[in-house]
Amino acid sequence: MFGVTVLGNNSAVPAFGRHPTSQVITTSGGKFLVDRGEGTQIQMINYKIRRSRISHIFISHLHGDHYFGLIGLLNSFALLNRTQKLTIVGPEILKTIIDLQFKVADTVLPYELEFLPVNSGGYITTVDNIEIRSFATDHRIACYGFVFKEKKNLRKIDIQKTSFHNVPYSFYHHLQKGADYKDENGLIIPNEELTTSAGPSKKYAFCADGRYNETIIKHIEGADMIYHETTYLDNLADRAFMRFHSTTRQAGRIAENAGVKKLLIGHFSSKYDSLDEFLSETQEVFPQTQLALEGVTYLI
Amino acid sequence: MFGVTVLGNNSAVPAFGRHPTSQVITTSGGKFLVDRGEGTQIQMINYKIRRSRISHIFISHLHGDHYFGLIGLLNSFALLNRTQKLTIVGPEILKTIIDLQFKVADTVLPYELEFLPVNSGGYITTVDNIEIRSFATDHRIACYGFVFKEKKNLRKIDIQKTSFHNVPYSFYHHLQKGADYKDENGLIIPNEELTTSAGPSKKYAFCADGRYNETIIKHIEGADMIYHETTYLDNLADRAFMRFHSTTRQAGRIAENAGVKKLLIGHFSSKYDSLDEFLSETQEVFPQTQLALEGVTYLI
Repeated sequence: MFGVTVLGNNSAVPAFGRHPTSQVITTSGGKFLVDRGEGTQIQMINYKIRRSRISHIFISHLHGDHYFGLIGLLNSFALLNRTQKLTIVGPEILKTIIDLQFKVADTVLPYELEFLPVNSGGYITTVDNIEIRSFATDHRIACYGFVFKEKKNLRKIDIQKTSFHNVPYSFYHHLQKGADYKDENGLIIPNEELTTSAGPSKKYAFCADGRYNETIIKHIEGADMIYHETTYLDNLADRAFMRFHSTTRQAGRIAENAGVKKLLIGHFSSKYDSLDEFLSETQEVFPQTQLALEGVTYLI
Repeated sequence: MFGVTVLGNNSAVPAFGRHPTSQVITTSGGKFLVDRGEGTQIQMINYKIRRSRISHIFISHLHGDHYFGLIGLLNSFALLNRTQKLTIVGPEILKTIIDLQFKVADTVLPYELEFLPVNSGGYITTVDNIEIRSFATDHRIACYGFVFKEKKNLRKIDIQKTSFHNVPYSFYHHLQKGADYKDENGLIIPNEELTTSAGPSKKYAFCADGRYNETIIKHIEGADMIYHETTYLDNLADRAFMRFHSTTRQAGRIAENAGVKKLLIGHFSSKYDSLDEFLSETQEVFPQTQLALEGVTYLI
């Protein structure tokens, strides 16, 4: 399973039942959060996403609608007696803000909080099979997109064959990585006999907030899915530029030029009640577009 | 109108659809917010409370469930182009936290933000007819309750009499304050002819978080309504003490000893699904008790 669940799809001010930006990325190795607008903790409860499964939180930039809900979640983890390590990835000054808020509350966290600063784009970390990199977007303040890429997909076990050859379950993870199996008689059974080939490795890019910006294309190209913001409809391209945001058609052009398979759009301005035109305008440029709807999980 | 609307009645971690602490106090002179847990901005939208009417925000202490929603509201005010001054009352270090968060977001507020530090109990400010004072509670970190007291109630205009004497509408606010009226012939009509007496001035006390603590009684005595926390039922009095919180019976005893008219209870621990026992246990000690239910307005 490699998918993204949308918790919030609205820009700045909450409106029409829509919440500020937050996504959950589910991988074979655990769950990541990307951005953390206020109130998304309650969204996680509503959508029955187990908070304890979150191992990493990525914050794209320090506009409030992308991180004001972070401190509340960290606090809840403390109150729920989390012990497992949590890693936060974000602009370096975020660590100062978090530390100050825990200091004034006299809170000592029961879990290890690791902080990985993102002050320029590039490699961040690898979690199990997923390599994570960041790239700068063109926003009013420093802002980063994130690319989540399966390093190599695991080969698929052929259960009938492994049963026939009595391969113990404990050896399966070696098989998935391509190892041959030596049975009790010393006979070597080639990996190709016991597994089928892995599918191609998948790639998801979260393009955060920002203006239309072709320099991001090299980072996201060929992705199976990207999320790109569409704060405004096409007729407000001037306003989008002035406010360092993008329109429907601009998001479509980025997806088209980057040769991605699917485009997810969100960060809708609070001035729009209906989202229909966001979808139709973007699909005119890039047909494989979907609205990022809250509570929906999109397979990558 | 002098009333309190509950936006959140839960302690620390959101649970069972209940939100962290926040209340709106409606007075003849405007609206005040008291505490500001995360997600209460969406609660205000749900309950159709106009954010623009808020003139003052009071923060009792810096545990996250009482202020993590503040910065998002201040930010929304900026995005909604508020121009009217906003006053925040709270522990002094809160100003540092707010300033830092706006600095990193490169946000310049379009409205004046006044900050009144509360670092010891006492007189804070007077807003129209309401005098506001604070008092210390016995909590793990510095924590303050707030008393909202009508200074003097305005006399009630007797419309039949003022019409008969042709008193112009522009003179009504003088009448409300007790002035006599001199008509066009120089005849003095005594105030008592034109108005009826004001009702007694009302008093509401928000007792914030804290242990059972009789030193607060002198500040809240005779109040028409107090809010007192009941994090735990009576059988967890030891845990309440250890965690600097109160139980049902303790809140009832405070209300009883302070000779108040009505008691509102809240800040229920997330371990409790049903609130029935909170009400029944507290009413055994103090019958005029009501649960602080989200979305409900209680007249003071």
